[in-house]
Amino acid sequence: MKTVVFPLAGNEGLAHTIARGIGAEIGALRVRRFPDGESYVRYQSPVEGRRTILVCTLDRPDDKFLPLVFAAAAARDLGAVEVGLVAPYLAYMRQDRQFKPGEAVTSTHFAQALGRWVDWLVTVDPHLHRRSSLSEIYPVPTATLHAAPAISAWIREAVTNPVLIGPDGESEQWVGAVAKDAGAPYVVLEKTRRGDRDVEVSVPDVEQWRESTPVLVDDIISTARTMIETIEHLKAAALAPPICIGVHAVFADHAYPDLQTAGARRIVTCNTIPHASNAIDISALLVAGIHSLS
Amino acid sequence: MKTVVFPLAGNEGLAHTIARGIGAEIGALRVRRFPDGESYVRYQSPVEGRRTILVCTLDRPDDKFLPLVFAAAAARDLGAVEVGLVAPYLAYMRQDRQFKPGEAVTSTHFAQALGRWVDWLVTVDPHLHRRSSLSEIYPVPTATLHAAPAISAWIREAVTNPVLIGPDGESEQWVGAVAKDAGAPYVVLEKTRRGDRDVEVSVPDVEQWRESTPVLVDDIISTARTMIETIEHLKAAALAPPICIGVHAVFADHAYPDLQTAGARRIVTCNTIPHASNAIDISALLVAGIHSLS
Repeated sequence: MKTVVFPLAGNEGLAHTIARGIGAEIGALRVRRFPDGESYVRYQSPVEGRRTILVCTLDRPDDKFLPLVFAAAAARDLGAVEVGLVAPYLAYMRQDRQFKPGEAVTSTHFAQALGRWVDWLVTVDPHLHRRSSLSEIYPVPTATLHAAPAISAWIREAVTNPVLIGPDGESEQWVGAVAKDAGAPYVVLEKTRRGDRDVEVSVPDVEQWRESTPVLVDDIISTARTMIETIEHLKAAALAPPICIGVHAVFADHAYPDLQTAGARRIVTCNTIPHASNAIDISALLVAGIHSLS
Repeated sequence: MKTVVFPLAGNEGLAHTIARGIGAEIGALRVRRFPDGESYVRYQSPVEGRRTILVCTLDRPDDKFLPLVFAAAAARDLGAVEVGLVAPYLAYMRQDRQFKPGEAVTSTHFAQALGRWVDWLVTVDPHLHRRSSLSEIYPVPTATLHAAPAISAWIREAVTNPVLIGPDGESEQWVGAVAKDAGAPYVVLEKTRRGDRDVEVSVPDVEQWRESTPVLVDDIISTARTMIETIEHLKAAALAPPICIGVHAVFADHAYPDLQTAGARRIVTCNTIPHASNAIDISALLVAGIHSLS
């Protein structure tokens, strides 16, 4: 059976790589907005009797949602045998419970709203916090890929004398794993509370890292506040400007220039969200994820 | 059982009038956007054990959709007995079939995507074209209200010596009905084809209307192209500047100033979409619609 991969706007590059990787055709899907703000969706390649894969990353999800739903529903109407979704960045993973009374638990609602339109979902490092897997909320089979090995490989290849920096104790597990894979040391910043509002942050064994290149790693760079603060601490400790690596280049508002200005030596992300900082290709992961589900 | 009416952003005025009209409380629902573009929804008034009514007009629907879904889903999670939706303007009514192969029939898909989250739907003059009623596509009970009587009443009260103008033969039925209710005459523009690209448009019995106030009426004013063209024809016929009335003040891009500049004497709309031109109140219709469903 033929498989056709359809990119939604902005996902053309990744869709082509995926299509090559799974030996599928690339299809054309037109999505545009009418002057009144409604969306128009049209398949310009056949889907009848084919497995269709939509590629649509879901940063800034609200106005991407309906065009994606229309694309999935139309594929089925037009006789597609299967409608899969590759969403390298998956939205609405943060609000996974009511932190305050009356709140919408949007991770559950979004999963229900999206899940009914597709047969399966492939994504990379969703922000799983209090949940252990996507299957707790998504009603369809999912494949969750991890970018850490690709990030480790990039560090091994591109960074001379790296030291991974964890901004706090919570990050130790993740930073330690990437460091191990990269064959690099890591250090976690130390907080010493001197009073109610006075917390000193220091780099343990700081002398040891004077000649190293600090590397910061996070799953999502959104406002970049944590990274910018960490850069300040490294500056205060007179370490070299760090390389900042994120899996997902969300970069809310001015986060990207802010992070540059703060003193990042280089900002590097995976290509889950198209962005100037993309340098680590995760398309091989997505191909493996698609194979695992079909 | 208590009923609480919750406005989504921009719908506060109408929600208050509706709440008074049905003897319900008005509730507070907070909707905001995080820096990364995701939406946050929180009920700040209780919904448990109550009938809840969401008021959310659906012009420019794409980025309103998920917050509305979250509000409906959260109401149910929080123990609401019923979740109704008042959407004075209903989106995605135009694409009701495939005009070209491969097109998404968005009116059907939107109805399915929205309909599963609410128990009923009240709306005003949805753009029903090839469909005879909303129940063909919406899986829940709907009440469809008609603004024509309110528009006729406004014309009777506010316009001296009105003559309703139909831009073409298709509009005759609707314009004729409004005119009859308003106790006013109407005239339909006449097209005479003189060649492939040469169509002359004229006002029949033009001398008869020299002292009248032309009134144009349409269901949706979106790009306002039809009204602007009609104004040109009236100008050419040396009639007075017309009053332009629309049910739904969509006004895409610069349509509102364009229509003013084109020579509308006044632009008047119903309050289904909040806009500076709102002058005809349809809240009593909505109250009747709510009563008809519950």
